[in-house]
Amino acid sequence: MIGRFKLFSDPVHGFVSVPKDLILDLVQTPEVQRLRRIRQLGVGHMVFPGAEHSRFGHALGAMALMHDALASLGEKGTLLAGEDVQAALIAALLHDVGHGPFSHTLEHSLIAGIEHEDLSRALILRLNERFDGALSRALSIFDSECGTGLPPAWLHSLLSSQLDMDRLDYLRRDSYYTGVVEGRVGVGRIIRTLRVVHDDRLGRDRLVVEAKGRYAVENFLLSRRLMYWQVYLHKTVLSGDFLLRSIIGRVRDHLEGVLGQEAVDVAAGASTRFLFFLDNHFGPGDLTRNEVLSAFVDLDDTDIIFSLKAWSTARDPVLAHLCRRFLTRNFFRVSFLDEDDDVPPAGELRDRVAAWLRANGMIDSDRNVGHFLGTETTRHEAYSATRDGIGILRRDGQVEELADVAGSVMQPDTWSRKERTWVCCPKEALIAS
Amino acid sequence: MIGRFKLFSDPVHGFVSVPKDLILDLVQTPEVQRLRRIRQLGVGHMVFPGAEHSRFGHALGAMALMHDALASLGEKGTLLAGEDVQAALIAALLHDVGHGPFSHTLEHSLIAGIEHEDLSRALILRLNERFDGALSRALSIFDSECGTGLPPAWLHSLLSSQLDMDRLDYLRRDSYYTGVVEGRVGVGRIIRTLRVVHDDRLGRDRLVVEAKGRYAVENFLLSRRLMYWQVYLHKTVLSGDFLLRSIIGRVRDHLEGVLGQEAVDVAAGASTRFLFFLDNHFGPGDLTRNEVLSAFVDLDDTDIIFSLKAWSTARDPVLAHLCRRFLTRNFFRVSFLDEDDDVPPAGELRDRVAAWLRANGMIDSDRNVGHFLGTETTRHEAYSATRDGIGILRRDGQVEELADVAGSVMQPDTWSRKERTWVCCPKEALIAS
Amino acid sequence: MIGRFKLFSDPVHGFVSVPKDLILDLVQTPEVQRLRRIRQLGVGHMVFPGAEHSRFGHALGAMALMHDALASLGEKGTLLAGEDVQAALIAALLHDVGHGPFSHTLEHSLIAGIEHEDLSRALILRLNERFDGALSRALSIFDSECGTGLPPAWLHSLLSSQLDMDRLDYLRRDSYYTGVVEGRVGVGRIIRTLRVVHDDRLGRDRLVVEAKGRYAVENFLLSRRLMYWQVYLHKTVLSGDFLLRSIIGRVRDHLEGVLGQEAVDVAAGASTRFLFFLDNHFGPGDLTRNEVLSAFVDLDDTDIIFSLKAWSTARDPVLAHLCRRFLTRNFFRVSFLDEDDDVPPAGELRDRVAAWLRANGMIDSDRNVGHFLGTETTRHEAYSATRDGIGILRRDGQVEELADVAGSVMQPDTWSRKERTWVCCPKEALIAS
Amino acid sequence: MIGRFKLFSDPVHGFVSVPKDLILDLVQTPEVQRLRRIRQLGVGHMVFPGAEHSRFGHALGAMALMHDALASLGEKGTLLAGEDVQAALIAALLHDVGHGPFSHTLEHSLIAGIEHEDLSRALILRLNERFDGALSRALSIFDSECGTGLPPAWLHSLLSSQLDMDRLDYLRRDSYYTGVVEGRVGVGRIIRTLRVVHDDRLGRDRLVVEAKGRYAVENFLLSRRLMYWQVYLHKTVLSGDFLLRSIIGRVRDHLEGVLGQEAVDVAAGASTRFLFFLDNHFGPGDLTRNEVLSAFVDLDDTDIIFSLKAWSTARDPVLAHLCRRFLTRNFFRVSFLDEDDDVPPAGELRDRVAAWLRANGMIDSDRNVGHFLGTETTRHEAYSATRDGIGILRRDGQVEELADVAGSVMQPDTWSRKERTWVCCPKEALIAS
Repeated sequence: MIGRFKLFSDPVHGFVSVPKDLILDLVQTPEVQRLRRIRQLGVGHMVFPGAEHSRFGHALGAMALMHDALASLGEKGTLLAGEDVQAALIAALLHDVGHGPFSHTLEHSLIAGIEHEDLSRALILRLNERFDGALSRALSIFDSECGTGLPPAWLHSLLSSQLDMDRLDYLRRDSYYTGVVEGRVGVGRIIRTLRVVHDDRLGRDRLVVEAKGRYAVENFLLSRRLMYWQVYLHKTVLSGDFLLRSIIGRVRDHLEGVLGQEAVDVAAGASTRFLFFLDNHFGPGDLTRNEVLSAFVDLDDTDIIFSLKAWSTARDPVLAHLCRRFLTRNFFRVSFLDEDDDVPPAGELRDRVAAWLRANGMIDSDRNVGHFLGTETTRHEAYSATRDGIGILRRDGQVEELADVAGSVMQPDTWSRKERTWVCCPKEALIAS
Repeated sequence: MIGRFKLFSDPVHGFVSVPKDLILDLVQTPEVQRLRRIRQLGVGHMVFPGAEHSRFGHALGAMALMHDALASLGEKGTLLAGEDVQAALIAALLHDVGHGPFSHTLEHSLIAGIEHEDLSRALILRLNERFDGALSRALSIFDSECGTGLPPAWLHSLLSSQLDMDRLDYLRRDSYYTGVVEGRVGVGRIIRTLRVVHDDRLGRDRLVVEAKGRYAVENFLLSRRLMYWQVYLHKTVLSGDFLLRSIIGRVRDHLEGVLGQEAVDVAAGASTRFLFFLDNHFGPGDLTRNEVLSAFVDLDDTDIIFSLKAWSTARDPVLAHLCRRFLTRNFFRVSFLDEDDDVPPAGELRDRVAAWLRANGMIDSDRNVGHFLGTETTRHEAYSATRDGIGILRRDGQVEELADVAGSVMQPDTWSRKERTWVCCPKEALIAS
Repeated sequence: MIGRFKLFSDPVHGFVSVPKDLILDLVQTPEVQRLRRIRQLGVGHMVFPGAEHSRFGHALGAMALMHDALASLGEKGTLLAGEDVQAALIAALLHDVGHGPFSHTLEHSLIAGIEHEDLSRALILRLNERFDGALSRALSIFDSECGTGLPPAWLHSLLSSQLDMDRLDYLRRDSYYTGVVEGRVGVGRIIRTLRVVHDDRLGRDRLVVEAKGRYAVENFLLSRRLMYWQVYLHKTVLSGDFLLRSIIGRVRDHLEGVLGQEAVDVAAGASTRFLFFLDNHFGPGDLTRNEVLSAFVDLDDTDIIFSLKAWSTARDPVLAHLCRRFLTRNFFRVSFLDEDDDVPPAGELRDRVAAWLRANGMIDSDRNVGHFLGTETTRHEAYSATRDGIGILRRDGQVEELADVAGSVMQPDTWSRKERTWVCCPKEALIAS
Repeated sequence: MIGRFKLFSDPVHGFVSVPKDLILDLVQTPEVQRLRRIRQLGVGHMVFPGAEHSRFGHALGAMALMHDALASLGEKGTLLAGEDVQAALIAALLHDVGHGPFSHTLEHSLIAGIEHEDLSRALILRLNERFDGALSRALSIFDSECGTGLPPAWLHSLLSSQLDMDRLDYLRRDSYYTGVVEGRVGVGRIIRTLRVVHDDRLGRDRLVVEAKGRYAVENFLLSRRLMYWQVYLHKTVLSGDFLLRSIIGRVRDHLEGVLGQEAVDVAAGASTRFLFFLDNHFGPGDLTRNEVLSAFVDLDDTDIIFSLKAWSTARDPVLAHLCRRFLTRNFFRVSFLDEDDDVPPAGELRDRVAAWLRANGMIDSDRNVGHFLGTETTRHEAYSATRDGIGILRRDGQVEELADVAGSVMQPDTWSRKERTWVCCPKEALIAS
């Protein structure tokens, strides 16, 4: 009887109890253990030095919040069968298992045309085989598969929606580790105001928030927006992301043999697993190939850092320069076009970067300039009233979309969607005239 | 040399250093010490049991944040003369010294036609006399008096504006004591992004926020809004406030002799200081009378509670009933008209309350019904772009009003101003048909 | 089904769920509601300004921890019947209900010869009558009554022992409100290492701590010791306590008519409830008298403060002086004899205080000197290996007393018991030679 | 004037200001930036999943506390010249710069016969050359060099003693990231009770703690002890350390060519930097060799993890097995001899491990058994009264050693020094009979 749970000491949620059954077995798999070697915020820790936490803690945390949400709903009369409780916990534990090294930074660089959710799904499928189908119900929740004999549809909302346990955990967690206290979301209050009610239009049960939780939800959405612009899309984070992708682009140039006299052997000293993904151009169709998945599971942040350290002394001055900059956090300067009005016009910028390359012993080809100069647009949508939405349960029993509640801040058409265009290049290229 | 500062252990800001000079002398005055006996949130602690803190901690906290703000501005090149530093600290310490028992709840009940700021000013004047004019510069800051030889105008903004040290402290503090973590404002980040710049239109220096602090400021305004609707204007808080004012109204009925056969002696066992204010109808003109100010300084929460305990056994069943309800936290039910649609029409409500009064041995006169039934409108404005405003310092050196910054949530005309009308009466009157 | 629990927002433990049954009814009684008007730390908030919290939060908190402890024991196989769970929660809620105004400060001044536990018991008995015997099992736990058909004996240990929920809550809570972070006890860790095992020597089940919780328990005991010497028995707290008891002594002098020409009427303006206790000399035998208990329930901190404010303008200069000092926090200077070696000998001290009294228009009788000069001894025992003890469950299943565990800090004979003798009198009497 | 400081957002201490001068230049060096890639707690994060923080944050934090300590001493009259303030900050920033991958775990494995302090000193010397001698005063503080024209001797105590800024920061920080709240030390209180006084016996100034800080210091020492036994020397941490050292031992076996038929090429796919240290047996004399230091600066946690991943598929079954266990956190079972009494005698243990090796296709040579079976003794001394000691400043101006203060817990001869002997081997070897 003693010790049916393994306790993890989590600084964010206190102790997290993991049942010593299938769930602990899943925690022990290489698929989940590798999350210990993948930082939650990609290059974010280079801007917020405390934020060196990995995806492993987030996986446990999302599962812990799923447990709390089900307990709170249970207290209010929405009781689940034991197998659905387990399936929901598993789905929360594994929802992000498909993240690769540097999380979102490299999300589209290693395998083209997919999102991390696709990889999560592929890995859950693989685990389901290994565990003889024990993850099938979890997969149904993940896939939002409804119908007779399947878990209720609202479980998918707890897993993936505008107000899911994933978001609640990562905001609370990233706020804790970055020290950005404004991001501290009222997780307890939101979870305690969740309810499951029948939605006549949908003809099924639906997850909603009691009216008294409405300000907490608005606060959550605004805190999330703050975390995006202040942390996840911080100027220096964007710049670090750009630099890392430039390095990958440069390595691919080498692998594809398009560099002529500049070409060097990038394989020496680098991670073969990493090169496997750079050398091939995998796409959605490769997610069913066992060798690709196995290589992916073996890949983590250390492969990238290790390779960068190798390339930082490569004979190609462009590659070596890019890698050294990354390792010493000497990122490019980013200018937001809506904020900085001293950004030179595109042509002039290109000329400056080209001149700077020449002056530093690098060839000023278009390809090379492209590694040092970029223009991108970053988007964040704080809230959408259409895509699934957030239902508020009025005291009279009606469900209203959050945007329609009287006096709601969440006006989707005005400020909540935003994009910012930015330019980046080495600071030295701007200064040197 | 040792011990030039007295350290106060403040759970919110850590240690607060108070210089052992004029400032510590002011802390020791009866005017400031009485703040220990005045709860910060009026009846708020009866809804949020942890929020039993007094105005004394807030006075120290506002002073501590003023110190931090001046230090941060100093690091950025805005240096003040020592006498202005002291004046600013004193102004922060004393800015709320005019709050009376139950803070905002009774703000307009004891002396009509004034705000607590008027009383703060009257008490600072009185202290200034006692301290031989040493508070004159602090008073200039309080009064926003500018000109040659006076403290700079922007100091008043630190003391009283939409982004002042008062608000930063009380939000952070009330969040700490209520446990409403969503109210936790990024005080450190905001203070570190403050700047003083010259405003050409105004022809003088002005307090602004650097662009990178902009999300933290929006978060602060939204957190404040949440704290208003979730805490300060919480349904049960409004109800407690109403009940307390009903009791005062009833006592005044007695003192004015309008009750006829119901009349009893309300002086027995009650606080004479409290009665002094109830019996007279003081107004703005009385703020210069020493006896009124002295009585006010002697008055605190204990006078009110003590009197309520005395009246809870009065022979007047109305008064006794109201007081007993307050002491056992059996407040009236509040319904917001925009949320609860089961509120009977006004006439029917009145009839029900009257019937309930009769059934409980109380006379159903209009006056009596008025103590048990109320309709009020509560307002909160999250942000105003016109009244002083909040300037954001762009990277190009221009100052923009927060509402005009691209993608700002703070759209003053839509959601940020809000009023809610509510009705309250005893729950029993509603249930009994 | 909805809303079977009332949620209290507690800044210390998050949300506390109170079942809407007998337990919520008990929370609403005047006996429990009055705890809102009794500060947890007596005069402690005058030294630690954040510590203005009342006994009400502590009552809820102890109950919340009792709930957590039973849940954790349940996970480990020690399951209780529902009625025993409820009884344990009730016992925790009410364990301190017998505290009077200023908590420990006046514990022996109002009713002689009893501890607050005796009053708690008397009030629980009274409530049990009012609730038709529904509190009988809770009373058994409180009384540590064992035997067939009664709650298990170890429940009493959770309620009252060297490692009970009372202590865990008040340390965590007082640390939170004072800002003394060192007092932050690892409540979660301790609760999760509790176990109930059969003790062959005792012939019954016993509450123990798993070996891995041993350092957390030592830390708890040492934190408690720190909180005693740094907070509860802080020099200025001792001085405030002394002053308050001097005031009571002086009022009793008046009431007993032993003051001759100095005598004044202390009843004017003071709380009659307070005077009822000062005028009579109640003892243990009076705990069964309903009028005494009723008066006690009506008494709270406001009666004392209110009376002090009245007496601060009394014609007796001694009484007025003492009360004014208290209200403006101008306490006497305390010197610990083991620390301050500039304390004059007893005779000289007495002479100085007498001279100071004369110089300030007060009569230098022995009785009067006694109100201004005191010598007392303060004791604290961090841990006792004999009185019930703390059992540590070794990995081999044996239970060892904490003091006997290899390398334990808790050596009861050396440092853990301590007493300090101190002297106090007005600072001015020491300076004036 | 604007922006003379770079602000780092530190979740532990809030914002840390780094002056944009020599100090920020030092932060940007590869020597300091590499600390981002070295985890503070070695394998500790595999037991406490939140504790994934690196040594970079600790370096900033120790510097921040040094700043606070100097500010507090300044308020008390101990003022330093600007160059000494800078030197002290630099010394704090760089004090641990010599830590290598996995911090203490591999401290003696890469270069024999030295401590990390020796490497810190070697790197500071190297930096001092690069910065043209600007670090000389910092080096004097590091070396505790006193005399005319040198920084005062007590600065070394702030840097390295039983109560230094290093320890205050790492305890507070590790408590934050592990979630072991009991380790939360009262940093603010201790720093504010520091004093510098003249010690007549020593004939120089000395760092001491005011008497009122004495309980906070005892609490700090006891919290540190708890963190040692509960975190730093946690059973599973010891086991992870052992496993990592076994792997290194195995690789060295290969490199030294002592394995005969088992030999494989361990260079394939592993970090050449790591192999450089494994292949050579560097000792104290090598600290002056530039190539050794350069290789050391290039080495970090990723080299070790990357190599382990490579070896986890090596043809040597022993090496592959050890690496796989490490990567999936399948550590050996550790038994403390003072706690677990079911540990078989040494001979039997050896036989079981040998049998288990054979059964799993590995050769049961002595050398191989040694990689799977170990006995070690772990020591921790909570406090030493002799080695430098901790002086407590009595109110009468005398300085007493902490152990001699009346009622002190810190009795160095009884519990404060402790050693525990433990045995570890694969759990499977114990179970299989």
